[in-house]
Amino acid sequence: MTEYRRLRVALLGAGAVGSQVAALLRKHGDELADRAGAALDLVGIAVRDLDAPRDTDLPRELLTTDPEPLIVGADIVIELMGGIEPARTHILAAINSGADVVTANKALLATHGPEIFEAADQVGASVYYEAAAAGAIPIIRPLRDSLAGDRVQRIMGIVNGTTNYILDRMDREGSEFSDVLADAQALGYAEADPTADVEGYDAAQKAAILASLAFHTAVPLDGVHREGITSVDKQMMDAARHAGYVIKLLAVCERLTGADGESISVRVYPALIPREHPLASVHGANNAVFVQAEAAGDLMFYGAGAGGVQTASAVLGDIVSAARRHIAGGVGVGESTRANLPVVPIGRVTTRYQITLEVDDEPGVLATVAGILSEGRVSIATVEQTVIRESNGEPGVARIVIGTHKAVEQDLSETVDRLAASGVVERVVSVLRVEGN
Amino acid sequence: MTEYRRLRVALLGAGAVGSQVAALLRKHGDELADRAGAALDLVGIAVRDLDAPRDTDLPRELLTTDPEPLIVGADIVIELMGGIEPARTHILAAINSGADVVTANKALLATHGPEIFEAADQVGASVYYEAAAAGAIPIIRPLRDSLAGDRVQRIMGIVNGTTNYILDRMDREGSEFSDVLADAQALGYAEADPTADVEGYDAAQKAAILASLAFHTAVPLDGVHREGITSVDKQMMDAARHAGYVIKLLAVCERLTGADGESISVRVYPALIPREHPLASVHGANNAVFVQAEAAGDLMFYGAGAGGVQTASAVLGDIVSAARRHIAGGVGVGESTRANLPVVPIGRVTTRYQITLEVDDEPGVLATVAGILSEGRVSIATVEQTVIRESNGEPGVARIVIGTHKAVEQDLSETVDRLAASGVVERVVSVLRVEGN
Repeated sequence: MTEYRRLRVALLGAGAVGSQVAALLRKHGDELADRAGAALDLVGIAVRDLDAPRDTDLPRELLTTDPEPLIVGADIVIELMGGIEPARTHILAAINSGADVVTANKALLATHGPEIFEAADQVGASVYYEAAAAGAIPIIRPLRDSLAGDRVQRIMGIVNGTTNYILDRMDREGSEFSDVLADAQALGYAEADPTADVEGYDAAQKAAILASLAFHTAVPLDGVHREGITSVDKQMMDAARHAGYVIKLLAVCERLTGADGESISVRVYPALIPREHPLASVHGANNAVFVQAEAAGDLMFYGAGAGGVQTASAVLGDIVSAARRHIAGGVGVGESTRANLPVVPIGRVTTRYQITLEVDDEPGVLATVAGILSEGRVSIATVEQTVIRESNGEPGVARIVIGTHKAVEQDLSETVDRLAASGVVERVVSVLRVEGN
Repeated sequence: MTEYRRLRVALLGAGAVGSQVAALLRKHGDELADRAGAALDLVGIAVRDLDAPRDTDLPRELLTTDPEPLIVGADIVIELMGGIEPARTHILAAINSGADVVTANKALLATHGPEIFEAADQVGASVYYEAAAAGAIPIIRPLRDSLAGDRVQRIMGIVNGTTNYILDRMDREGSEFSDVLADAQALGYAEADPTADVEGYDAAQKAAILASLAFHTAVPLDGVHREGITSVDKQMMDAARHAGYVIKLLAVCERLTGADGESISVRVYPALIPREHPLASVHGANNAVFVQAEAAGDLMFYGAGAGGVQTASAVLGDIVSAARRHIAGGVGVGESTRANLPVVPIGRVTTRYQITLEVDDEPGVLATVAGILSEGRVSIATVEQTVIRESNGEPGVARIVIGTHKAVEQDLSETVDRLAASGVVERVVSVLRVEGN
């Protein structure tokens, strides 16, 4: 047996991920020591309630409701409590007492990332957060290290398992959103209060983290445009399928190059992507991150987006990295925000759109619609008109599905308002962005 | 402008990858300096021929035919010469003079990896080789760092772009191997001498590197079982398609658990994989590595497997990592071979098989075939028999396609020999392993 230096590891939180991390740390202790070059001594687990039921057996004597003494003197602090406070205070305390930090806390990093990275930078500590962006999928290291010599142009991620599960079932079964949501809740794929997932808040936090890393820019959470999937219905899904698309909740992080230099756009919304795109075949609660880089070309990272044991794998990888760094000495690698590109509002983003309208089935209507689009600087790529109710005493109704060329969101949005007010449009059925080609 | 410490970078080799690395180092110098925390001064490029034509313009004054003075005094040495010697000698000299090393040399690492990693370990240097395993796909860091706290069970990789391009076209177009190969050569997807690719040598080197890393075991190249794709013909492709499979050249690295402890198997061969498996949709010259880990579950990494500029992206990521480590101080992370699991020969490997036979179309033949399989401890899962030539004066011929349950390679191979010698089998058309379910 090699005699290793011993590192004191403190765990904050013993929920689904925390209890798995504790179990794996104990189960694979010798193996982890060999890989880290240090013995990892789990010295304590801070919990809110000593008697709460847990997924795995944890030794009672390691549990404590008092995190402060644990943090002081720890070499590595693992924060898996979630939420902003007291997680933020504990992480800053850990950094300032000389520990390296491992966290899976996307809400905290998306809102207080710069403060935490700055504090770490001041004392030469490192903060690891592989589990914060896409569960078990290794995406942080590829972005931070492997692509450090490249320029990321675009990231399109399916980064929320719950919404992908719901949309995938809607697509495959032709079901309605509310039915699949209820079923997903019953099966444990969605929370009792599904707001964070279905309204895109979770995906927006991950988008902010990915964009910050990819573009070396501190992206504030309120710089992320966010739309959820609650408006996606069976009709939209059917129409998407008919047109060769599938609807996915995408986190899009994009580098824009204009006359006034570079900027970035970060946005989360349900979008149409072509069936043959690699992201279209990401099923169930899986996640995938598609990265386009200047030199590397197209890359995709695929795996489980959530789950206690899957996320624990990412946390353990970070713990081994933190231990290696602690042993190797030297200072940690800070997060680079040197580019600090401006984040543009959604109105200035350019994409393709698919607009579905119900119109009066009368002569001249298509000409009117086409005229409004043209005036609004929205160029038509494809049109499909079908009669959905024959005129039969009362006026007939037709459906027009318009695929646009790339248009500016602001122009598109104003144009849709003008269409809605035009008198010939009965109803704007849907407006969806098209990504991925 | 931040004033950075300057690091001396020496480049050995200016071929397709090397010339792109040199160009990107110069083009993105400021950006790379910000990311690395150090200015990267390209102090020289060692080449064989000063006047050889190159893909990019390189400053003549940086070129030299004498690598030794370059290596001495460099902080980072980038070896992109390829081949065993003099690359090995130069890398060892670089390590011993205190440099960190970046290399894309899979042939060297697959044969002399342990010697090189041992030398680096002795002096606390690091060796980076992200570009050696699957081109631009970040797979080394995920295996070494992200999954460091997990246990990899299995890797299935499409790690050779040329063979995937050929098999994909054979599958899509129904073409013959030789026709597609000739076309691939004309288009630059295959070399004039395609042996290294089509016989699986390139894939075997990458398999040895991936298995060494994933299983913390020094896997010698001759421990890798290797079969190429030259025997794959249109008929096999058609039969695979008919049965819901596609044929891919796979590098399989597998952890085996037996009564006498753990061992590993590393093998490269054309195998049937189900159409719905994520690896089945890897088209063209792309690569993908599918990883199954105990905690993380299924992960897949996808991207361009080759190409000068794509591979250069991986090399630059390594250069930035090497620079950060050089600046941070401390010692490098050695390659862990602490597990040193035995590598089992192909005969002890267990997989499913698909056996295609042409037999006499006579009563009792299927019973004879089934009897031989049963005696050979090969259990039948599926059988499909079709008459391919009616008995018409001369004896008829039937084709039998047998899908087996998991069987031991040694048993299977002996059983196939017995089938061939049985008198009822006219011809063993093909024996293919089935992977991925």
